[in-house]
Amino acid sequence: MSEISINCDEVDIVIGALQLDLTSFMEEWRPVFSQFNLIIVQDPDLKGKLKIPAGFNFDLYTKSDIDGFLGSLSNAISFSGYCCRYFGYLMSQKKYIIAIDDDCIPAKDSAGNFVDAVAQHIINLSTPATPFFFNTLYDPFCEGADFVRGYPFSLRSGVDCGLSCGLWLNLADLDAPTQALKPELRNNRYVDAVLTVPARTMMPVSGINIGFNRELVGPALVPAFRLAKEGNLRWETVEDIWTGMCVKVVCDHLRLGVKSGLPYVWRKERGNAIESLKKEWEGVKLMEDVIPFFQSLRLSTSAGTAEDCVSEIAATVKEQLAPANPVFARAAESMVEWVTLWKRARTR
Amino acid sequence: MSEISINCDEVDIVIGALQLDLTSFMEEWRPVFSQFNLIIVQDPDLKGKLKIPAGFNFDLYTKSDIDGFLGSLSNAISFSGYCCRYFGYLMSQKKYIIAIDDDCIPAKDSAGNFVDAVAQHIINLSTPATPFFFNTLYDPFCEGADFVRGYPFSLRSGVDCGLSCGLWLNLADLDAPTQALKPELRNNRYVDAVLTVPARTMMPVSGINIGFNRELVGPALVPAFRLAKEGNLRWETVEDIWTGMCVKVVCDHLRLGVKSGLPYVWRKERGNAIESLKKEWEGVKLMEDVIPFFQSLRLSTSAGTAEDCVSEIAATVKEQLAPANPVFARAAESMVEWVTLWKRARTR
Repeated sequence: MSEISINCDEVDIVIGALQLDLTSFMEEWRPVFSQFNLIIVQDPDLKGKLKIPAGFNFDLYTKSDIDGFLGSLSNAISFSGYCCRYFGYLMSQKKYIIAIDDDCIPAKDSAGNFVDAVAQHIINLSTPATPFFFNTLYDPFCEGADFVRGYPFSLRSGVDCGLSCGLWLNLADLDAPTQALKPELRNNRYVDAVLTVPARTMMPVSGINIGFNRELVGPALVPAFRLAKEGNLRWETVEDIWTGMCVKVVCDHLRLGVKSGLPYVWRKERGNAIESLKKEWEGVKLMEDVIPFFQSLRLSTSAGTAEDCVSEIAATVKEQLAPANPVFARAAESMVEWVTLWKRARTR
Repeated sequence: MSEISINCDEVDIVIGALQLDLTSFMEEWRPVFSQFNLIIVQDPDLKGKLKIPAGFNFDLYTKSDIDGFLGSLSNAISFSGYCCRYFGYLMSQKKYIIAIDDDCIPAKDSAGNFVDAVAQHIINLSTPATPFFFNTLYDPFCEGADFVRGYPFSLRSGVDCGLSCGLWLNLADLDAPTQALKPELRNNRYVDAVLTVPARTMMPVSGINIGFNRELVGPALVPAFRLAKEGNLRWETVEDIWTGMCVKVVCDHLRLGVKSGLPYVWRKERGNAIESLKKEWEGVKLMEDVIPFFQSLRLSTSAGTAEDCVSEIAATVKEQLAPANPVFARAAESMVEWVTLWKRARTR
């Protein structure tokens, strides 16, 4: 791991609490989380008082905080379920945000050492990304790595990294049909690499284990895409997939990078995949329209900030996708409202 | 590793011999190479008789074979140095070709097991590639892997794989300046992954350790780009970088895939990096023009085969790059001649 000194004051760890008792989750992460400020947002659908062990610095936000902040603007955006974390993104004033699902614990690397996921995300975010040419030996800024023969020197300084997407051991981030069809499938392949996802390449960003530079791309982390019958299991949501495409398009447009790979987290079992067989897989079907849309989306040169970009994407979604399905009309509306909320949060 | 039965009759292993005594190289690879037919091409600049241990099936080609085949067409293409292997590509009639530099021996994986590089290349080439959307858990066709949530089902069948680019442990494939500036740098990170390099993403393909589907992309593996003072050390050549860009552009155009990652080989020390400091780094400088050229290159819909594509690339090189530097004029000429040779080899 590179020698990078992490300034804890620059980092917020955002946790969306989908369960009342966070004790075992927090204890597993104690050596890491106790160094940082935490922003814990309780799923507004979750009734009761959160159980959080002592010894952590945290700001807690609940339904009343969310309602109070939204005020009259509470018609388009929902912060329920996994989307509660986005309220934490709004509240943060730090440079970097790390978000990890509350059913994940630290993973072990191939040598059996616990992985400090937060440190790895910060390394990914604070070293350059290289989206304009692929380095076959992966991230050239990892210790012991470099650019390979043929890599143009003019591109070796790289660009700022906007988003760091971590991965998952044990329960991989599969969709409902795959999880149901292969209930025994577990991911046990530890791939010791970080890479920059090339410019103009779209990818399914999972919100399970991510870090981002809030100052550069924060407004693009938008809770916009909600299924009509969205569940509280990851494989029943696609909100983060939509968000990830937004961030990727924004990064490509603003000449920022997106990295994927390390750090891993260990995902524990949650939910019954077979039960999910009974549900509609609306999310899976919608991807067939969502992905070509984002693949062909190009923003205008006048969009100079992440906020501008999100507003422009919202307008294009309304124009091109919304006529076919109301889920897209709601997404466009949420994105517009999000930009308003983002500005409001900056001027408090 | 996936359960794929390898038909040895479909594979040629091509070895460019840049040293007379192949004994230790062949002995290291014996368990693998002895199962296949080998095509050994002696560097025409290398005087003397090759020493090849007993127990291998091979066809040997030397300067007289090359001269005989070229006949009057011997003005543009040179098969000297690392380019001698391309003569083997011409001579092969098999579906798959694997090529490994003669200073490489089998690598060991993280568990200490020897890596069968040929088997891994064949797995990469015979399973689909996914160039149109990035799968964050890497090659979904590896054992234990799958497509992640959000990956569109319409893209999951993938496309045929044209090229498999393997990697290198110990001496990484760095360029002359990097190798000279960091003479102690060694690659010891074993990344247990194969991925499809996304469509329209360019990459520096190294010829050290590759496999390809000769029937699909063979003509694009063209020895075209020779430096004025090309050396016999890998870091002093860029012929394979040019070739790789050709193959990538052809694959993108024909909707084929290029994979990178496993298998690794172990590269032994060869040459003196500090000596290379005294040389001109023409290759490094030329990349600044070569890469933007290939990044923006789009082929016409009438180019329906790899041969068509190479002819069209040659014409564009002649038009756009050749006026600035005679090295590009020679490259264009070599590509035209190569297509002629490729057809001649098919009609023997």
